Amino acid sequence: MTIRTVVWGENIHEQTNAVVRGIYPDGMHSTIAAALNAGDGIEATTATLQEPEHGLSVERLAGTDVLVWWGHKDHGAVADEVVERVARRVFEGMGLIVLHSGHFSKPFKRLMGTPCALKWREAGERERIWTVNPGHPIAAGLPESFVLENEEMYGEFFSVPEPLETVFISWFAGGEVFRSGLTWRRGAGNIFYFRPGHETYPTYQDANVQTVIRNAVKWAYNPMPAHIGVHDAPNVPVEQALEPITERGPKLHQSGEEGYK
Amino acid sequence: MTIRTVVWGENIHEQTNAVVRGIYPDGMHSTIAAALNAGDGIEATTATLQEPEHGLSVERLAGTDVLVWWGHKDHGAVADEVVERVARRVFEGMGLIVLHSGHFSKPFKRLMGTPCALKWREAGERERIWTVNPGHPIAAGLPESFVLENEEMYGEFFSVPEPLETVFISWFAGGEVFRSGLTWRRGAGNIFYFRPGHETYPTYQDANVQTVIRNAVKWAYNPMPAHIGVHDAPNVPVEQALEPITERGPKLHQSGEEGYK
Amino acid sequence: MTIRTVVWGENIHEQTNAVVRGIYPDGMHSTIAAALNAGDGIEATTATLQEPEHGLSVERLAGTDVLVWWGHKDHGAVADEVVERVARRVFEGMGLIVLHSGHFSKPFKRLMGTPCALKWREAGERERIWTVNPGHPIAAGLPESFVLENEEMYGEFFSVPEPLETVFISWFAGGEVFRSGLTWRRGAGNIFYFRPGHETYPTYQDANVQTVIRNAVKWAYNPMPAHIGVHDAPNVPVEQALEPITERGPKLHQSGEEGYK
Amino acid sequence: MTIRTVVWGENIHEQTNAVVRGIYPDGMHSTIAAALNAGDGIEATTATLQEPEHGLSVERLAGTDVLVWWGHKDHGAVADEVVERVARRVFEGMGLIVLHSGHFSKPFKRLMGTPCALKWREAGERERIWTVNPGHPIAAGLPESFVLENEEMYGEFFSVPEPLETVFISWFAGGEVFRSGLTWRRGAGNIFYFRPGHETYPTYQDANVQTVIRNAVKWAYNPMPAHIGVHDAPNVPVEQALEPITERGPKLHQSGEEGYK
Repeated sequence: MTIRTVVWGENIHEQTNAVVRGIYPDGMHSTIAAALNAGDGIEATTATLQEPEHGLSVERLAGTDVLVWWGHKDHGAVADEVVERVARRVFEGMGLIVLHSGHFSKPFKRLMGTPCALKWREAGERERIWTVNPGHPIAAGLPESFVLENEEMYGEFFSVPEPLETVFISWFAGGEVFRSGLTWRRGAGNIFYFRPGHETYPTYQDANVQTVIRNAVKWAYNPMPAHIGVHDAPNVPVEQALEPITERGPKLHQSGEEGYK
Repeated sequence: MTIRTVVWGENIHEQTNAVVRGIYPDGMHSTIAAALNAGDGIEATTATLQEPEHGLSVERLAGTDVLVWWGHKDHGAVADEVVERVARRVFEGMGLIVLHSGHFSKPFKRLMGTPCALKWREAGERERIWTVNPGHPIAAGLPESFVLENEEMYGEFFSVPEPLETVFISWFAGGEVFRSGLTWRRGAGNIFYFRPGHETYPTYQDANVQTVIRNAVKWAYNPMPAHIGVHDAPNVPVEQALEPITERGPKLHQSGEEGYK
Repeated sequence: MTIRTVVWGENIHEQTNAVVRGIYPDGMHSTIAAALNAGDGIEATTATLQEPEHGLSVERLAGTDVLVWWGHKDHGAVADEVVERVARRVFEGMGLIVLHSGHFSKPFKRLMGTPCALKWREAGERERIWTVNPGHPIAAGLPESFVLENEEMYGEFFSVPEPLETVFISWFAGGEVFRSGLTWRRGAGNIFYFRPGHETYPTYQDANVQTVIRNAVKWAYNPMPAHIGVHDAPNVPVEQALEPITERGPKLHQSGEEGYK
Repeated sequence: MTIRTVVWGENIHEQTNAVVRGIYPDGMHSTIAAALNAGDGIEATTATLQEPEHGLSVERLAGTDVLVWWGHKDHGAVADEVVERVARRVFEGMGLIVLHSGHFSKPFKRLMGTPCALKWREAGERERIWTVNPGHPIAAGLPESFVLENEEMYGEFFSVPEPLETVFISWFAGGEVFRSGLTWRRGAGNIFYFRPGHETYPTYQDANVQTVIRNAVKWAYNPMPAHIGVHDAPNVPVEQALEPITERGPKLHQSGEEGYK
């Protein structure tokens, strides 16, 4: 049984910026997908902003167990309909891994319900990533800390909801800290945010970074059937109550009527 | 120092349904506001759907410490601009208390990022509300459980994010349970959802229910100045880094340029 | 790869009480272990209070991935040394499933750090268990609710720490509710408490209950190597600091000295 | 109404180490208590290891709203009976603020149920403390980060339970990070751990540190009556069930008998 994973890439700077193209000639999404395919149990394909429906049709998402998301330059170009489609699949149990500048992507903001803002500085400074939850599956096989010699700084306050668990915290040479690995569950879907990955540095070629993303895909995978009932607000008729009760008092709704939404 | 509280009421069934008008001749919002004003430390006014900007202008919200929300019949009539305005004030530190059918209100769904769906049955059955967190300030002065003899049933699964804390759980005569009192923080704002309050029953005249809402307003109140920085994603120039660092490597952004949103 | 599971049973009422012996002639632990062995991926053995070191020697625990605990009549008879041994293995990554009256067991109280008290009534009343977290792996394959026709009632307030996630909530015919399925992580170890299982009823022969325990063992299993470093508070010598720093100011400790514990 | 606060100091290095005595001639506890008394709403007194019952008699604790704890050199000298007494009062609603090396104190380990271990280095290096939860009352009035020029380093993994909320994270010049401000609730009691405060540096004379501790005392204060019921596991007789039920099936306990503990 393999985890059907789609790596979504915005795929803009790879085409417009020589530095980025030099590091990721086939696109960042391809590098990430290749890293996922290198291990057991994951079958990763890619999708990009430029494809019809951004490569995320209803059918494609229905067959996706985990979606990995990287975007930066043009979050606004993602169609609202696709954003809502992604959110619905997360509620049904699709895992979602949001990378780096994806903190401002529409699907992440939609699912967090908060600004998802942060401080930043693009100076190629040293980032040291610490595991603060060594028993968490996303930390498997990692050293207690590892270094990315050149990264963009992200600093607190990162305005996301208090996570289920904090897995990684970053130290930056310029003096900041950042909660770099955070988990949430929304509906039946597991969500993980992972900080590193500025496009002008070869971050996704780093072995530790690849391990984290691979672990995250496995952690986020929910093998249960899609929980499609999550969208419904069903009326339970009084005659089907689990304990026998008698209807009492005034009512707004006729029998069998739908609720207000 | 008083907590400036606005009780927002949809104010539809009070005008169109004789039963509801009989129980709440001045509107549910007026009954709730009166209960809040009966205690110390809270100064409650009301706002309704029918007022310009639903009574929630920028100025009004800027002077609101805690907003209480009840809506049911026509959630869709609330303007998206007002929803976003409410969300922004929550991020800045305004408290939000969402009551009963407000689970499907636009502001609540916006802030939770989830479907907020549930099961329901309108049969006037007995609800017993249990405190499962007796040290929480919202439970102050309450018995370990109390009864609402006639209420609409809400049943799990309630598709909201795992709360910070669970304060109340309801037992229903027909066999269901429901997490009836849940807390979250979003940005600098505290949010509390409280289940009871179907409009065909005199729930908001119940002394225990009034105690809960009064406690919740006090708990949600954040006396700090509005955290207006929560909306920003500021660039930190390298020459202003807290620790001296030297800029290295390629860059996407010119000095002083804004980030992509 | 199988999950090496030990089902620990107090094994007293099975010998002293005819009703319990009639339901569980080979002991409750044997019934539970058989249910675990009936599925794939788990290899369950048993241990009891009466064995030397209660069947939980250092060697046995070192080879245990998940420990399931049922006790009731004589919690005090469990040796403190064994309790501490169990706690250490949990911190290192061993999973722990605590059943029913095990809420007052020494290992559970040791790991929770709270009274773990609750209300109770032994009247053979109906319990209905609701899933409030349908995407959680422990809820896999279960209906949205299921009934145990005869069970002991446990009621709130259940004085345990706020859990990582609430998975099940029980409804009782006599009017109470109870958080029946709760998860925590302690060190590298996953802990799950599951409420049902009074010894005078055939609860552990129920298919849904067996599914929950089987799911819980799989969820609690941490495949990483034992995190033995969790017990240490190592000094990091200044000359081994990750960033070069110079020692400054007065010191309490000589170089290489251990910290105070 | 003032918050009756006791600042507990181990009071050893102040007497045996000239550096510490030079900084805190009246003891660290006196400096902390003075800082608490300088603001409104708190009335702080002190207690030390050397006093009878360590200054924490049953009567004294019964009249204590919040206890602040600093210990380091001789955690083992604290009597187990006093530790249990402190834990019981926390369950009943007394707040507890644990400072710095108090991470290894008996009351903290008792209440957390985990090793509470960490890495450390005594090199007088720079610590920068970041607020990662600016809406939390404990962060009121603080800048987004502040510096302690000379502090002992504490590094992750800090083996405590996942907190309710993370309020502060520290950056260290030598390359480590640490979750420096964490909250938990245990029973009806609020607990806050705050990292800074090595005795060879004047940390408790720092205005920001004093603000944090003052905020923490106010946050931890639970004005409700002591929740003495938290220690009980009462039997609910069947004839007093909230919903009428009939006793069924076999029983272990005679009517009115206590449960097993």
